[in-house]
Amino acid sequence: MHRTRVRVVEDALDANTTIARANREEFDRAGVSVVNVMSAPGAGKTTLLERILAGDGLGGVRVAVLEGDVQGSLDADRLASLHVPVVQLNTGNGFGGECHLDANMVRSALPSLALDEIDLLVVENVGNLVCPAEFRIGEDARIMVSSVAEGDDKPLKYPLMFRACELVIVNKLDLLEHVDFDLDRFLGHLEAVHPGVEHLLVSARTGEGVDEIGEWLVRLADRGRARA
Amino acid sequence: MHRTRVRVVEDALDANTTIARANREEFDRAGVSVVNVMSAPGAGKTTLLERILAGDGLGGVRVAVLEGDVQGSLDADRLASLHVPVVQLNTGNGFGGECHLDANMVRSALPSLALDEIDLLVVENVGNLVCPAEFRIGEDARIMVSSVAEGDDKPLKYPLMFRACELVIVNKLDLLEHVDFDLDRFLGHLEAVHPGVEHLLVSARTGEGVDEIGEWLVRLADRGRARA
Repeated sequence: MHRTRVRVVEDALDANTTIARANREEFDRAGVSVVNVMSAPGAGKTTLLERILAGDGLGGVRVAVLEGDVQGSLDADRLASLHVPVVQLNTGNGFGGECHLDANMVRSALPSLALDEIDLLVVENVGNLVCPAEFRIGEDARIMVSSVAEGDDKPLKYPLMFRACELVIVNKLDLLEHVDFDLDRFLGHLEAVHPGVEHLLVSARTGEGVDEIGEWLVRLADRGRARA
Repeated sequence: MHRTRVRVVEDALDANTTIARANREEFDRAGVSVVNVMSAPGAGKTTLLERILAGDGLGGVRVAVLEGDVQGSLDADRLASLHVPVVQLNTGNGFGGECHLDANMVRSALPSLALDEIDLLVVENVGNLVCPAEFRIGEDARIMVSSVAEGDDKPLKYPLMFRACELVIVNKLDLLEHVDFDLDRFLGHLEAVHPGVEHLLVSARTGEGVDEIGEWLVRLADRGRARA
């Protein structure tokens, strides 16, 4: 049974790669950069996005958000109040795709997105440190958000996720003095599993470091516009 | 393709149920109670177990631990220093089962466990709020650990997980004054998705509430011994 299962999974990943490539072509045609934001549940992705979108750190970059959730639209509702186009994707009931977004789910949302009117699409993935890392969606870059409340061992425990990203955001820095989290140890573990990866130290609660995320996103969007 | 995928998934869940039943028979024969502990990454499962196992809150209950991780044995190493039998299960590389434990993985560990010499088997699942809820492993009860650092919206965002348990542990209570977490709102959401479920408020860091978890586990073990 195990062999059959692996075979099916390989087929699914192959199909995903093909659809991710098709998504990529549509994004390129419209000059849209896409960032896939991943983390464990409750690491603060939505609060960070609220902070970034509410400020003016993105300059003239026009943004839309694709919200991935197992169920409901709590996060999408929070972001929609910021007058940014938000599309909700629910990964549904039956097992077999609900713990992550895949290229086909993102593809199904494209008709709802006015790609020609945006520069940057932010995709907030389902909170999960395992499967989202395995499914490309046609993005330019992946951001991994890790909260200091989760502990400094996480890069060693979920190495694929920490490897499958171009930027690691260490969030909830305001909690550092209240938790058993050794920042140097965390950064050492990160360097061990993904040498040289960029990281930013931030607090979505206080706003510390949020401007730097904005600057990083603006650079990403600029590269997309240059390609179009 | 979707239909095929769902079909394969149904087969996998059926197979899992059959194997979970076989595990259950072995546990019953030995009079062992089994608890499946689930949470998001970094919610504090291992630290709670350290606290419980290091103290004398379990009275004479003989415990073994099965550690589920994608990779490595960090948590197992921490617990092994407490002189409790610990078996590590790594859910491996290839996709298709790595984000959760299933009944067959637990079954593969049974030969390493001296079931006749224990009363309670604690299974620490992979940190994930989606898939572990769908795979029974032959357990008597499931505990869901949720940290206040994750936010009070989690029962609404991951309802299946909060429904698929007999006890919800609200951990990191020591952080309550430092995070935007409304305990009453959380408990209201919990009651909405799983009316009447038991909950305990604890802090693995300070030890608050840990004795109550121990008492809960002793009652569970007593029921197992009574059945044998």
